[in-house]
Formats: sequence, structure tokens, C-alpha cells
Amino acid sequence: MPAHSSPIATLPLALLATGKALPGQRITATELDLKLGRPAGYTLAQSGIQSRHLADTQDDQAWLAAQALQDALRQGGIPPASIDLLISASAIPVQALPCSAAHVLAQANLPAGTPGFDINASCVGFITALHTAAALLGSGAYRRIAIVCADLASRGVNWQDPKSSLIFGDGAACVIVEKGNGMQRLLGFRQHTHPRHSALCEIRAGGTRRNPRSGMNDADFLFQMQGTRLFRQTAPLMQTLLADLLSDTGLTLDDIALVIPHQASHLGMSHMRERLGIASSKLVDIYATHGNQVAASLPTALHEAHLAGRLPQGEPAALIGTGAGLTLAALAWLL
Amino acid sequence: MPAHSSPIATLPLALLATGKALPGQRITATELDLKLGRPAGYTLAQSGIQSRHLADTQDDQAWLAAQALQDALRQGGIPPASIDLLISASAIPVQALPCSAAHVLAQANLPAGTPGFDINASCVGFITALHTAAALLGSGAYRRIAIVCADLASRGVNWQDPKSSLIFGDGAACVIVEKGNGMQRLLGFRQHTHPRHSALCEIRAGGTRRNPRSGMNDADFLFQMQGTRLFRQTAPLMQTLLADLLSDTGLTLDDIALVIPHQASHLGMSHMRERLGIASSKLVDIYATHGNQVAASLPTALHEAHLAGRLPQGEPAALIGTGAGLTLAALAWLL
Repeated sequence: MPAHSSPIATLPLALLATGKALPGQRITATELDLKLGRPAGYTLAQSGIQSRHLADTQDDQAWLAAQALQDALRQGGIPPASIDLLISASAIPVQALPCSAAHVLAQANLPAGTPGFDINASCVGFITALHTAAALLGSGAYRRIAIVCADLASRGVNWQDPKSSLIFGDGAACVIVEKGNGMQRLLGFRQHTHPRHSALCEIRAGGTRRNPRSGMNDADFLFQMQGTRLFRQTAPLMQTLLADLLSDTGLTLDDIALVIPHQASHLGMSHMRERLGIASSKLVDIYATHGNQVAASLPTALHEAHLAGRLPQGEPAALIGTGAGLTLAALAWLL
Repeated sequence: MPAHSSPIATLPLALLATGKALPGQRITATELDLKLGRPAGYTLAQSGIQSRHLADTQDDQAWLAAQALQDALRQGGIPPASIDLLISASAIPVQALPCSAAHVLAQANLPAGTPGFDINASCVGFITALHTAAALLGSGAYRRIAIVCADLASRGVNWQDPKSSLIFGDGAACVIVEKGNGMQRLLGFRQHTHPRHSALCEIRAGGTRRNPRSGMNDADFLFQMQGTRLFRQTAPLMQTLLADLLSDTGLTLDDIALVIPHQASHLGMSHMRERLGIASSKLVDIYATHGNQVAASLPTALHEAHLAGRLPQGEPAALIGTGAGLTLAALAWLL
């Protein structure tokens, strides 16, 4: 266990509403077989995804995030003016400058001046943002925070890569939280970053590293993943993360009533479930109808569990995931 | 004043150490006159900058951030293993995926697993990160946080644009904070986002909006600014921001012993100083030797004030700035 680890005090955090948005184009496994020139059944067998939504070139990541926010406001009957902070926690930005939160706010119909900023912890940014929101609400700086995550993985998918091209879906989700009365609270939070493996999963262009001035080609805009090596590195780190979270909180895995994982891949999720010893019935799995939506996966899975009435009351749920960086994060939330 | 505004409780926050790093290449105004084919004296007269540092194509934004972190650790005699969170608050990312914090951690010599994530509020991200760090430290989640900001504006400068090409400098800075005993504390924090004006100051490529798949040309990687319109929009918003901060904290401008502004431009800073009524003697101005270092400006100015022994003890200092987004932020810190 790293020297810096320490249990956190529990943090009040109440879930008010969730929402999601998907771009218009729904692609089934059969349609993807045709697009990629594969035999019938190939995509479903390889990816475990029946259908996912993919953006067309006109779709706008920030607009999708704003739609997810509107959905959450509507579902919760929440006045837009009561949102006093917007956190955008997508993995890929809208553009290099300014921050994506500004682009979302431009389409969000919140009062002029409403502050927004980005939190980025790659694919698990939603967990980090949720924990940060709890700390900010606890400090009294804000009263009601909307977290939005939107990713258009299709803008960076390499359709020639048999492994990564099949697993992604585009989408956005929003979660609105406030401090509440302390009945609902975070019991623990852990994030570990292992940058030694960051080249296993990346998009090299977009910032100062690869641009027209520092050398760049179109392939640098494509998502690159070394899936097998990534999985080998991640699996033991995930066990440590979960052990740390349980140790911090004094919980056992049996005490966790629902596990909401990052929807990384069919294989990745099933290996993780077995390795960590999580019962299938406790797992939120929306992968077959959404794919890996990058940072939007975790809040979308939370939203679907919420809609389905699966969020446990009075028992902790856990959010857990691993992503580019490598960044691993987990939290336990008494809902 | 927007409906969502509310004063915050004071938040304990102690400054432990600061550091900075600059890329190797120092360019004087005279050298820039030659590079741009301008008459002698042009650059200094137009920009007010005597010299700034510019990265060459081999320089690495994350490495520069890691150097600033090492400088802060050294200056403060702080063991690297005592840092339990790294926040990267640069305006422009290293690359589209993963987050910049992972790249900084890869070169930072902190213990394996040390968590890191990005906060992005464009040019004023340091203020937002400092406030967020205070909330996280207050919650007990972390004990000692390093905030790093590094920007290589030169990667996006349009050397053909007479206004924006002269004002930027590259660099990085780091600030290390902990909760402390409450003597040092944030007295107030405000952030306002006005996205209606976000197109006045932007880099359009780098994310999902302009990339090879959604349409892009090399010019989309260049920084675009409509300086005069930007200034006209920003000036009254800045007055509102400062008024809100003073109202929240019950302070008057006279109570603020030192003002550390974003080093936007020579003209911008002098107009702001006059409009807000800040005495020259209270202002930290490192613009002539650093230029506008985007998100690295604010922590570099804090570092220089710290080194010069100018940070007031027992009286509040203010950090204030405006940047792309438009994002405005200010805080009052009793040091």
C-alpha cells in the first residue's frame, strides 16, 4: 500500500437526479459487420455489443453534454438556476482551449455567470469529479453541482484496429448532487495513478506533444491501445485499489450492495468481476447496449441503475474503474 | 449578481512551498524584432516585454511541470513521498488522452500510485485548483497537495498576428499546500464563466470539435484572439467579480495587501489596475520578464512574490484573473 494512502472521513453527498443523452445514429453489431466487411456475427462475438450509438460529423460533444444535463434537470424537476457549479469530466476535450465546461455552459441554459471547470482523470474522471464535488459541497462553496461527462470515442477510433474498433460507443450523462442531510454519504474514495503504463492507452495529438509545430500526423489523433498488456498491468492494480477502499471503509465486499464499473470491455468486465469476486447480480452492466463510452460510461451506468430502481437504499454502492493514465479510482457511496 | 452566488465559509489553507521552471531558450525583445522583421524597439514598445522564454520543439510541457515540482520540493525541503495528490492545472493539455497529470507524474519521482488529475479553468485554472485543493484538504481526503501549471503557448502562437504573437512566454510553476492550523486560510473564492464570449479567445483543434475526422486545418491549432472585443467584454465582468469577492468576505480593497493578477498583457493589466483602483505598489507584475504564460502565469507570479518576500503575513492577498472561456476567478487568501 503506498505511503500516501489514508482513510477519508465520510463526506455527505446526496444524489438528486441523473440523465443521459445519445447521438442519433444507432449502430447494431450486424450493421458494423457490414461496415467493416466482416462475416455476420463477427462484431457481436468479438465485442459482446448488440448496439451502440455513434456520432456523425455534425454531432457536438458539448451539445450532447448539455442534453444530458437537461435530461437530469427534467427527471429531477430541478430549476436550472439552482445549479451553482458545472463540472465537465470528459476524458477528451472539445478543443485545446478553452475548457470543455465553457462549451457545455454555452448550450446549457443556466444563468449567465454560472461557474464551470473541467476535471480530467481520463476514463474514471466521473469518480474523481464526484468525490471533488462532495468536498466542495462540504466546504460550503457550492450548494448544488451538476457533473457532466460526454465522449465521442468515434472521432478517434481506428477502424483498421480489430481490437479497439468494436468496443466503443458515444454518449453523455449527467449527475446532479448536493450535500443533503448526511444520510447519503461517501464512505471512502481512492484514486491511484500508474503513469509508467500510460503509453498502453492514449491519443497522442491534441495538445502540445503532437501538433503541427511539434510534429504530428493524422494517426496521432487515433486511439491507440495495447489491450493485452493493459489488461495484465491493470488486473493486480485493481485488486489493490479495491482492497484499499475496503480497508479504509471497514467494509467487506459482501457489504457492497451494487457495483457500478467502468464499462471497459466485455472481457475486461467479466475478468474483473471474477478476479475481484463480485456476484453477477450485483453488477451494473450496460455494455451490450452502449459499449465503452469512455468517461461517460460510469455516469451512464449510474443513470441506468437509477432508472431501473437498482440503487440500494441504506446500503453502499461502489463505483470502480480503470482507464488511460493508468488511472484507477473507486468510491463507496451510501445512497 | 447571479442568483447562484453565495459567500463561502473560510477554508484553512497553508502555503508550504513554490517553485518554477522555464525552458532553455530566452528571447529578448530585440531578438524578437529580428525574428519578426520589425524595426528595433517595436516588440518592447508593443508588448512591454523585455524577455520571455520560449520552448524549442524538443521541450516537453510535462517535463517542465515536473521541474517546477522538483524546484518547489527543494525550496521547501519537502519529502516527495509526502505529496499525496498532484493536480495539473494547465490550460492546454499535453495530448488528448490521458490527462496531463499522468504525464507529469511519469517524470515527477513521486511514489508509484500517487494520484493525479487535471483541473482546467483555462488561464485562471490555478485559482480554481487552489480553491479545490483547500476543499479536498478540508475534507481530510488528502494531507499535502502539489498544484502544477505548465503551458507552452509558443506551440500555438500565430507569428503573423501582430497582437497576440508578442505577448506570450512559456513556463511552469508549482505550489504545494496543506491544511495547516487554520491561521492561513481562504477568506473567499469566486468564479464566473461567461461562455457567450468564448470564441473571442480559443484554439479550435485538439479535441472532438476539429480533428482529422471532424474537419481541421493547421490554423485551427493556432491561438485566436480578438483582443479589443475581449477586453471590452472582460472589464465590467472583472469589476463584478471583485465586488462579489469583497462582499462575500466583508473586505474592502484597502484591506488587500497584495494583488497577484493573471499576467494577461501589459495594457490589460494596467487598465485593470486603474479600473479596479489597485495601487501599483500592491500589484505583482512579472510580465516584462515572463510574458503571458497562460495558466502558468498566476502560480509563477505567486512564486516570484514569495521569493521576493512580498507575501503579506496576517493580511490578505488576492489572486485574480480572466481567461479564455470567458472564465473569471478571484480568491482572497490570508497568508
